Amino acid sequence: MEESKSHRKGLVIGVIGAGSCSSEIQKLAETVGRLIAEKGATLVCGGLGGVMEAASRGAKKDGGVTIGILPGNEKSAANQYIDYAIATGIGEARNVIIIKTADAVIALPGKYGTLSEMAFAMKMGKPIVSLSNWDISEDIFKTDDPEEAVARAVELAGEKV
Amino acid sequence: MEESKSHRKGLVIGVIGAGSCSSEIQKLAETVGRLIAEKGATLVCGGLGGVMEAASRGAKKDGGVTIGILPGNEKSAANQYIDYAIATGIGEARNVIIIKTADAVIALPGKYGTLSEMAFAMKMGKPIVSLSNWDISEDIFKTDDPEEAVARAVELAGEKV
Amino acid sequence: MEESKSHRKGLVIGVIGAGSCSSEIQKLAETVGRLIAEKGATLVCGGLGGVMEAASRGAKKDGGVTIGILPGNEKSAANQYIDYAIATGIGEARNVIIIKTADAVIALPGKYGTLSEMAFAMKMGKPIVSLSNWDISEDIFKTDDPEEAVARAVELAGEKV
Amino acid sequence: MEESKSHRKGLVIGVIGAGSCSSEIQKLAETVGRLIAEKGATLVCGGLGGVMEAASRGAKKDGGVTIGILPGNEKSAANQYIDYAIATGIGEARNVIIIKTADAVIALPGKYGTLSEMAFAMKMGKPIVSLSNWDISEDIFKTDDPEEAVARAVELAGEKV
Repeated sequence: MEESKSHRKGLVIGVIGAGSCSSEIQKLAETVGRLIAEKGATLVCGGLGGVMEAASRGAKKDGGVTIGILPGNEKSAANQYIDYAIATGIGEARNVIIIKTADAVIALPGKYGTLSEMAFAMKMGKPIVSLSNWDISEDIFKTDDPEEAVARAVELAGEKV
Repeated sequence: MEESKSHRKGLVIGVIGAGSCSSEIQKLAETVGRLIAEKGATLVCGGLGGVMEAASRGAKKDGGVTIGILPGNEKSAANQYIDYAIATGIGEARNVIIIKTADAVIALPGKYGTLSEMAFAMKMGKPIVSLSNWDISEDIFKTDDPEEAVARAVELAGEKV
Repeated sequence: MEESKSHRKGLVIGVIGAGSCSSEIQKLAETVGRLIAEKGATLVCGGLGGVMEAASRGAKKDGGVTIGILPGNEKSAANQYIDYAIATGIGEARNVIIIKTADAVIALPGKYGTLSEMAFAMKMGKPIVSLSNWDISEDIFKTDDPEEAVARAVELAGEKV
Repeated sequence: MEESKSHRKGLVIGVIGAGSCSSEIQKLAETVGRLIAEKGATLVCGGLGGVMEAASRGAKKDGGVTIGILPGNEKSAANQYIDYAIATGIGEARNVIIIKTADAVIALPGKYGTLSEMAFAMKMGKPIVSLSNWDISEDIFKTDDPEEAVARAVELAGEKV
């Protein structure tokens, strides 16, 4: 009970980014995931490869909890570091659910799926911290430092919750 | 890591039923939730009141993990026994996600929302065990005994996974 | 403008039923579609085969307008009698949209998809007229006569709008 | 029949942009809508106010057909120039449906909802013509001239279909 209670109270940080990416970005994503777990927050992402997989791997290395909101019908599509795979079957529309479920979002480099998620986060007033290539608002905190990114996201998420 | 790995491998049992119900049905739902946790399975439900809340409470009493797939935009709508609230914002269409995320479904008494979920489970070939008022298929295992219901659901889920 | 105004004011009748069916049921569905068009109402359905295709064909034979709410990403999946194909990409969750878009629903024989739609219609308070095998509520008007079914659906839809 | 057949063969052009906007942008949107109708294409949009309403008004002035994909449960939320209101009940996730239903998209000035739609169109390979403030790809044809925008969109849509 103790543990699950703390889960519930714990913040949920969304990590968004490309479904396939360079090893450099994977390393960045893994660090972000690890730091999210270190802060005791739950990681939510799209559950697939690239940034999503690397961040989830990072979170699991530090004993964190990971949720993957999948586009398809089958939980088996989740990467191996996802604890709880949610099979939505609603395709790209699932991007909205990732954002709604997160208390704050960390954006890594990505393409148009990532951009759609950043746009939804802005529309819904969810705090975003960006390590991403997209620059869509002055209200988004930008940094190159994963430590700073996670610290800021957790802080913003806490204000939100 | 050990623990989270076992989470991943663990089965996910869906519990569906009325959003408000008698204390008798609440008691039944609580027992079902407790037994799901006892089996080491994760409970997924709609995250709101009635059967969903009672089953989640039961699961938490036995140290289980609970996921609530909410219809609305706000995680705060989840009942207090939900560990991981997924805010879908897609309304009743979220019923489909509960079924797709479950490896097997236990149906308790409910109204038309419950019926829609049982219908989707049948359509998607997800095993159902019924303690419910609805009788829509001879392929659904029916019982009055929560012990038998959970044992059978876990068994059917295991065959499915 | 005149015409489009009348479109707007016109009622929308949902037709639900099996994606593949006997020629007898196809004939029934075609009659239902034709009568909907004759009444000046728009037909909305799931856009695929079986009952959906036969009803759409009937509506087009009488100069009606047909809307198909498709589960997939491609409009080309619509049957040839659909005027306006809506590609949702949200899978079975699109059943909810059919019901929400209809002012009243006529249920023909079908399987679990049809049952899920009848359940959603009941949940959302949308009037249903049933020529179907499913019997889920005493509040559903049941008949074997397509003339009576369409007349009653149009009447109930009008009260609703 | 003739007419409905031509509807079916007709292209569907999506118009996206702000839900509330200046009279200048409304005028631009109205011109875009009128030109879409003049080309014999169907207009699909989000069904609400601002750019959506002005474009729909323009289309109806030239006898066009308009479809509104609404976020909410009630068709009554559609602006008065929508012929066929689709009540999705899935909130912002309906943005995906607008894009999937369009053969090409014309983007007018807008905020983050518009940006999410442009991002989805890029992700799904749907041609975009932009009169918008957002500049997210070199593959998007940009212009200030509504005549050129509609001509190009219809051309690109035709290649796509």
